[in-house]
Amino acid sequence: MAKDKEKFVREITSRDDDFAQWYTDVVLKAEMADYAPVRGCMIIRPYGFAVWERIKEEADRRFKATGHTNAYFPMLIPEHLLQKEVDHFDGFAPEVLWVTHGGDEELAERLIVRPTSETIINTMYSKWVQTYRDLPILINQWCSVFRWEKTTRPFLRTVEFLWQEGHTVHETYEDAQEETLRMHEIYRQVIEDEMAVPVILGKKSDSERFAGADATYTLEAMMHDGKALQSGTSHNLGQNFAKMFDIQFQDREGKLATAWTTSWGISTRLIGGLIMVHGDDRGMVMPPHVAPTQVIIVPIALHKEGVQEKAQELYDSLNGRFTVKLDDRTEYSPGWKFNQWELKGVPLRIEIGPKDIEKNQVVFVRRDTNEKIFVPMENLADQVDEMLETIQKDMFQAAKKRMEENTFTVKNFDEFKERMAAGNPFLKGMWCGDEECEAEIKDETTATIRCIPFDDKQEEIDTVCVHCGKPAKHMVYYAKAY
Amino acid sequence: MAKDKEKFVREITSRDDDFAQWYTDVVLKAEMADYAPVRGCMIIRPYGFAVWERIKEEADRRFKATGHTNAYFPMLIPEHLLQKEVDHFDGFAPEVLWVTHGGDEELAERLIVRPTSETIINTMYSKWVQTYRDLPILINQWCSVFRWEKTTRPFLRTVEFLWQEGHTVHETYEDAQEETLRMHEIYRQVIEDEMAVPVILGKKSDSERFAGADATYTLEAMMHDGKALQSGTSHNLGQNFAKMFDIQFQDREGKLATAWTTSWGISTRLIGGLIMVHGDDRGMVMPPHVAPTQVIIVPIALHKEGVQEKAQELYDSLNGRFTVKLDDRTEYSPGWKFNQWELKGVPLRIEIGPKDIEKNQVVFVRRDTNEKIFVPMENLADQVDEMLETIQKDMFQAAKKRMEENTFTVKNFDEFKERMAAGNPFLKGMWCGDEECEAEIKDETTATIRCIPFDDKQEEIDTVCVHCGKPAKHMVYYAKAY
Repeated sequence: MAKDKEKFVREITSRDDDFAQWYTDVVLKAEMADYAPVRGCMIIRPYGFAVWERIKEEADRRFKATGHTNAYFPMLIPEHLLQKEVDHFDGFAPEVLWVTHGGDEELAERLIVRPTSETIINTMYSKWVQTYRDLPILINQWCSVFRWEKTTRPFLRTVEFLWQEGHTVHETYEDAQEETLRMHEIYRQVIEDEMAVPVILGKKSDSERFAGADATYTLEAMMHDGKALQSGTSHNLGQNFAKMFDIQFQDREGKLATAWTTSWGISTRLIGGLIMVHGDDRGMVMPPHVAPTQVIIVPIALHKEGVQEKAQELYDSLNGRFTVKLDDRTEYSPGWKFNQWELKGVPLRIEIGPKDIEKNQVVFVRRDTNEKIFVPMENLADQVDEMLETIQKDMFQAAKKRMEENTFTVKNFDEFKERMAAGNPFLKGMWCGDEECEAEIKDETTATIRCIPFDDKQEEIDTVCVHCGKPAKHMVYYAKAY
Repeated sequence: MAKDKEKFVREITSRDDDFAQWYTDVVLKAEMADYAPVRGCMIIRPYGFAVWERIKEEADRRFKATGHTNAYFPMLIPEHLLQKEVDHFDGFAPEVLWVTHGGDEELAERLIVRPTSETIINTMYSKWVQTYRDLPILINQWCSVFRWEKTTRPFLRTVEFLWQEGHTVHETYEDAQEETLRMHEIYRQVIEDEMAVPVILGKKSDSERFAGADATYTLEAMMHDGKALQSGTSHNLGQNFAKMFDIQFQDREGKLATAWTTSWGISTRLIGGLIMVHGDDRGMVMPPHVAPTQVIIVPIALHKEGVQEKAQELYDSLNGRFTVKLDDRTEYSPGWKFNQWELKGVPLRIEIGPKDIEKNQVVFVRRDTNEKIFVPMENLADQVDEMLETIQKDMFQAAKKRMEENTFTVKNFDEFKERMAAGNPFLKGMWCGDEECEAEIKDETTATIRCIPFDDKQEEIDTVCVHCGKPAKHMVYYAKAY
């Protein structure tokens, strides 16, 4: 059964040749996910799920540090609740799944498999909120949601996906707005600081905002093919849901007031983004902060005296401080192992063989740059720590540089179309604020307004709209999107 | 709005007067859960969910330490998959929920909302398992499952509940059996050592075992009313699912072999057990290891100079090492706060007032015994730690003593019926091993065989069955159950 003469078969399509196929290959071969025998659903395999657990930990820690608690609300929602908020219902109705029978019986009222939980959660909030002293309510839920999508791809768009949805209630518009932006910033931290994925921040145009929201704030990341991925959203729901679901409270003056609510979410879609930002032709590349395994130790010439012992010693000195694995399988050659752990994207490989032991050193090999570095054995854990932080920063910087290099300023629609035809860039350009004009741009180029950046990032590129030539209201980012 | 003259309204029915109503009162008033506007479903509120998070952490940590990883499988299962294993399907069919429509379309094949995931997971395992080198597969999933139950009660029996389900594949029967018992032991640790709930361990009789299993091992806890609660189960599934789902592998001799599988689960039902074992007429009583808040600091005479500062100092010295809250609200009196935190079951209350500051002491008040202890301020954190461990142990011992005092040995059926009529005891008695005899006992007394204890706990009470008088096969525990 020895594999030392077997060739490692990677079977990954080149990223430049066929980006979509490359993506699917990486998802499957790195065992991030698999197709399920249920239309449009996926299995999140242990290696992919471990990434989700890391993202979850990083997000949950920040949610709790800002006063949020977790809870669980039912997955099945009676039809009449969803219909209460008409805009919201219209937004989701075409893609909801319906439970109609329990055992052999037809149900008295059909149940919706939750596409999102505003309706059921706000129903409870109207019961729980009595006075201003009950506010704010800051609850989050980790769960799965369902959208009966026609075209699906693992992580990016699936019928069922895992997410968290935060739902909060506040006394004032200002409190709700502050919360909306606070969570938006927490998402930025998780995505940029932990996943090493740079994002463009801003507000959605009216046509792209969440059904039932007053304002939706987004984080848009650029994939390796240049397309945008909406990576998280935070919604100021104004009083829309509070009015429909009667969330009223006695205010500080003793008067009855209507509350203000928010909701916000990130999902397993982030893992799709992680792959499409960092992955390469050898497979996955994991940023150290969310890597299921941060360090893989591969002993060279395992049969030579002292190698196994030294490798084990290394492992023991790193384990606990890092997530580390020792690959001391005898049926695979070191080369085979290198390939396998590269495919999995483990950020740092440590090689140790008889020569290294002699010189009291180990070899670091970085997954992101393939760089090989000889490192003295002293204070190894500190050096590993430093190296992982360097990899984390470099991966972020490389992705950021790529995004910047693929972002262009356009002043007129010819330039716009030319740039868009030449690839999938992010285009910074002016917009009149008119929905029809936005729709025309989409029709002609398939690019959409990804976001209206915050005021401090607005640039006055021109005074008129890049498409219609009417007076411009904002600078926006245009891009094709997943 | 000052509450200092308001009476704290507890509104909890006496446990001895009406156990069922007492339970519901505690669930609702302690804000563990609330009824949902969906038949048979509940909302797990933040305080109840925090207990689940603690249980989850304790279980998950042990799963991972024994080599298991988490994954996620779809919640919707195509009808034909569930029908593959006939025994299994028959067991669940009457209570499954059916998804029949997506948007306006009727689905080509109906989908089941998972009641448990053996069928979908084993379908994937048959694809993933090729050789003995792929084994064992040790995967766990945290998710929610659905049973269209007629009669429901928060935590104990709900249409949707949260659980974990482990699903493993092994080379041999012995490996599967070892795994089944390993997880059974981990459940014992979580339930006894963390939740302070003593359990009787053993195997289920054939009529009570999981649909499709060769053997089901259970953990049975005694509630305060004497009834049993099945608190976790671990199943050796033999080759039943492996055969139906074609989980075959090349064995060490190069021959094609059929695998052996297990599954095991605990659920939010455990929280119902926690309430019914430890709760009292003042509300919830949390064992320190799973308490969302372990220590509540209540300052006395907050308006007096130095009290707020000293209370804050205490908080700072304990926070991080324990989950601690400082209740420095000015609109509630100390007495009101005592009542509220007692209702919530916080294991340790620390009071600090001007007199205590003078004497350089604090007051500990134990939730479980109501005991008041004056404690010098030196090394307070260590003393808190010790006190919490004492409470944890004492709670377990108190519950164990109660269980033992309410467990009786019976030698004949008159004694059996007499004991059962006088309360809800656990009865140790002999059994012939016959299913019909078991069914008759149930018909006549509503008591069932909770488990057949392991060999080392078997006692030869008699040589004949307590009911039919035929030769006895085992000593078993009989009880009425939730």
